[in-house]
Amino acid sequence: MVSFDAHPDSYRHWRLRIDGEIAWLELDVDEQGGIQPGYELKLNSYDLGVDIELYDATQRLRFEHPGVRTVVLTSAKDKVFCAGANIRMLAAADHAWKVNFCKFTNETRNGMEDASANGQTYLAAVNGSCAGGGYELALACEHIVLVDDNSSTVALPEVPLLGVLPGTGGLTRVVDKRGTRKDLADVFATRPDGVKGRTAVEWRLVDELAPPRRFQETVETRARELAKRSTRTAGEGIELTPLQRDRYVTAELDRDAGTVAITVHAPGEVEEQQSAEFWPLAMTREFDDLILRLRTNEPELGTWLIRTSGDPAVVLGYERLLREKDDWLTNEIVHYYKRTLKRLDVTSRSLIALIEPGSCFAGLLAELAFACDRQYMLDDQESDDDATIVLTESNFGTYPMGNGISRLESRFWADHSHVDRLRKEIGTALTPAEADELGLVTDALDDIDWEDEIRIVVEGRTALSPDACTGMEANHRFVGPETIETKIFGRLTAWQNWIFNRPNASGDDGALRRYGTGKKAVFDRRRV
Amino acid sequence: MVSFDAHPDSYRHWRLRIDGEIAWLELDVDEQGGIQPGYELKLNSYDLGVDIELYDATQRLRFEHPGVRTVVLTSAKDKVFCAGANIRMLAAADHAWKVNFCKFTNETRNGMEDASANGQTYLAAVNGSCAGGGYELALACEHIVLVDDNSSTVALPEVPLLGVLPGTGGLTRVVDKRGTRKDLADVFATRPDGVKGRTAVEWRLVDELAPPRRFQETVETRARELAKRSTRTAGEGIELTPLQRDRYVTAELDRDAGTVAITVHAPGEVEEQQSAEFWPLAMTREFDDLILRLRTNEPELGTWLIRTSGDPAVVLGYERLLREKDDWLTNEIVHYYKRTLKRLDVTSRSLIALIEPGSCFAGLLAELAFACDRQYMLDDQESDDDATIVLTESNFGTYPMGNGISRLESRFWADHSHVDRLRKEIGTALTPAEADELGLVTDALDDIDWEDEIRIVVEGRTALSPDACTGMEANHRFVGPETIETKIFGRLTAWQNWIFNRPNASGDDGALRRYGTGKKAVFDRRRV
Repeated sequence: MVSFDAHPDSYRHWRLRIDGEIAWLELDVDEQGGIQPGYELKLNSYDLGVDIELYDATQRLRFEHPGVRTVVLTSAKDKVFCAGANIRMLAAADHAWKVNFCKFTNETRNGMEDASANGQTYLAAVNGSCAGGGYELALACEHIVLVDDNSSTVALPEVPLLGVLPGTGGLTRVVDKRGTRKDLADVFATRPDGVKGRTAVEWRLVDELAPPRRFQETVETRARELAKRSTRTAGEGIELTPLQRDRYVTAELDRDAGTVAITVHAPGEVEEQQSAEFWPLAMTREFDDLILRLRTNEPELGTWLIRTSGDPAVVLGYERLLREKDDWLTNEIVHYYKRTLKRLDVTSRSLIALIEPGSCFAGLLAELAFACDRQYMLDDQESDDDATIVLTESNFGTYPMGNGISRLESRFWADHSHVDRLRKEIGTALTPAEADELGLVTDALDDIDWEDEIRIVVEGRTALSPDACTGMEANHRFVGPETIETKIFGRLTAWQNWIFNRPNASGDDGALRRYGTGKKAVFDRRRV
Repeated sequence: MVSFDAHPDSYRHWRLRIDGEIAWLELDVDEQGGIQPGYELKLNSYDLGVDIELYDATQRLRFEHPGVRTVVLTSAKDKVFCAGANIRMLAAADHAWKVNFCKFTNETRNGMEDASANGQTYLAAVNGSCAGGGYELALACEHIVLVDDNSSTVALPEVPLLGVLPGTGGLTRVVDKRGTRKDLADVFATRPDGVKGRTAVEWRLVDELAPPRRFQETVETRARELAKRSTRTAGEGIELTPLQRDRYVTAELDRDAGTVAITVHAPGEVEEQQSAEFWPLAMTREFDDLILRLRTNEPELGTWLIRTSGDPAVVLGYERLLREKDDWLTNEIVHYYKRTLKRLDVTSRSLIALIEPGSCFAGLLAELAFACDRQYMLDDQESDDDATIVLTESNFGTYPMGNGISRLESRFWADHSHVDRLRKEIGTALTPAEADELGLVTDALDDIDWEDEIRIVVEGRTALSPDACTGMEANHRFVGPETIETKIFGRLTAWQNWIFNRPNASGDDGALRRYGTGKKAVFDRRRV
């Protein structure tokens, strides 16, 4: 069982040092510290364990060190920045592990870009060779300084050496974010030794060079400049205390059925707290952790049923706090919840929202329902206490999806006027009939039918091909515009998954399996 | 060897009837007419042979029947419109065949949308059950009329019955083009029996219903209305005479090296012709045909070297004709060349342009170079007759890529001002040094180095994993904005290719292989 708990005091692979507005995040991988046995993490190469610590650091920087305006990402090792994902780990890993690992690393890198967009800017200080996932880490930073020592290169050697793609955003970010010409990107991504010096700048692969003796000074100057540009208002951080599970998010695993029943709980009353105990933050942390653990440890539980429990008025009270308070913590919580919802959007599980009496799908929690593939609402006409959905301002853009638009805009992609119509319902407790009429739920079902219908829906879903569901959901969930994020999760990841499955990469004679054995890969030459 | 030659006189599966402004294109598949042995094309299901005829019909409609303003796509069979791609064919086909088949069918459907956007509008008259690829054919039409006979449905049964995706644009067009809500799209695409009647209209899956006795009348009325909306200026058609190969496009196949050397030839002089002999049309037809034949029949030739030969002044003369003449034929040729370039863009082969003395990479032929992954130019400083590139107005938007922007805009995605800068060079014969300076070529090489360098580049390319090249090129070529077209070729196709490769679909116990055997598929339940 993989745990995503981490703390700077026990990092094996990173050092985090805060120096006023500037944080130094140094990669210093412990070769013997692989999360699984069977490989050594040489040359600052990483595996899931290294990335779990990185994710922890990025989160603590935002909550515990909100005054940090620039994060310098660099290596503590001499002559090497990062060699990327460990190849022996990748070669030995099964398909599901590789794909899940890539997804998590992608999410963390997107999170670094989200930090940069919110005044905590990442700067890559590339002080040595920087290859594959190492360069992809640099690509996720806002600014890249490369040491000009006549030997250090940036490189994407995956295609020529391993027969796979630089799949952690590499291909997409080179052409779409950095604007490298596609022909130069093609040369770059097929050259195992990479590119150094002036060529790297001319091809837009790095932003600037610094000779070794001026490297530290250049990085510090640039870090201070980036900090100056930040409009971030400083504040005392809060401690991300050890996660308490099963308080606000509970999960029942049903291995026979292949499902997980997840419930998000609202507390009894609204309580303002400047700490990790504050419900929106505590709930988001639990939910984030649950998604990660289920994805990694429970791949056979393919359908998640998502419920909420509590008083909608309490959720709305918290919404009001989040909207009215204009401080750094509120801002960070909103962005964190946004990132967690995005994690749900790209989760390869069928997601079904069950909206029942006693639930609180209001505002930010209604987003959970809209993130699902389907929404079923129980229409218990006998009851005085029927289920409701309450829209708030936050359903109209506070938590955009990876495609840059809200879940409601995505839902009603063909009819934006309907989104305007829905704005008029802000604050109304919508009954099942109203929610159905407004297109907010897939179906509103009578009390008599509810259990049978839901059972049929769930049994039907779990009987389908898991792969077909994954492909279908990945296509349905992201309608409309595309961004670098959706390109990475849609196009790039899908091609990488295809390649991971092909004998040319993962077969006994494939490039990924044969790397480092001294034997050349044998390819089926047919282009597909 | 698959040939793409077809003619209405010898269609086995379609009937094309012209009635003034309206054409009737009726699907009447010959069960025994499969392009390969081993399956019967029941229920108007199709294979590559059926689609080759459809492509021929769509082309003849544009060139031989330019006066047609509405094309009614319907079935000549009773109670069945089209059952989609033949399942036994798909189950028996190898991976490369399936992928190539899907690509070609996608291109033809995009071509139908291109016709609709240019005043020859496709109308689907769904007179019976319409499933899978059959519904995807309807989705490619501008308007869908479904017979309301209480039994005919539209359906996408791929996920529940076959464990694969509706990969010919289905998932994408349902949510992105027709605007079906993602939760309803999810229900629809997991329901093997599909949706009929009013629900199909409410879910936006079809535009209107017509009862059987009024079906023909409704379709005719709608066809006339669509024709009336068209701003197309009629004209006498020209005959698409049997294709003469190896006149303007030649290809040398090198099976040992794994390459094809393609040369596009300009004629000796500019000659205006109102026939299929007109060079831009004759050349495009040959080039289109060559791409299709190479893709289908020569999958092991993974690198295409693209040259041109002739006098740039002649090419520019033809460009002038195409620009100055504002008649229907010119317009059709421009759109056909645009579609052919798009076919090149999505071709899973490494494309390398070789720009040498004696070449004519001017205007429309320069687009060939920009479509390539790399461009090498021979800089023979000794020669009086050095290679040149000539930009014209047509390089700035006449032939947009699938992402909706020109190849030059894509090339300089990060720096639009450079595109403006290039406009100033329109008409200039750019030397190798100038082309290199302006970023139009990957490298300009000395005469002394040329042969060795190109040999090294080609040998390097053909040594790479074919799958990794395909994935890399698919990601590099489409920078910037996304459209339904790029989503289909990027995201949807990539996921489908992944699924096609997975045991859950294509293994002995997979859903695609077990369909119709009476045995249920056995799935590896792990979600990836």
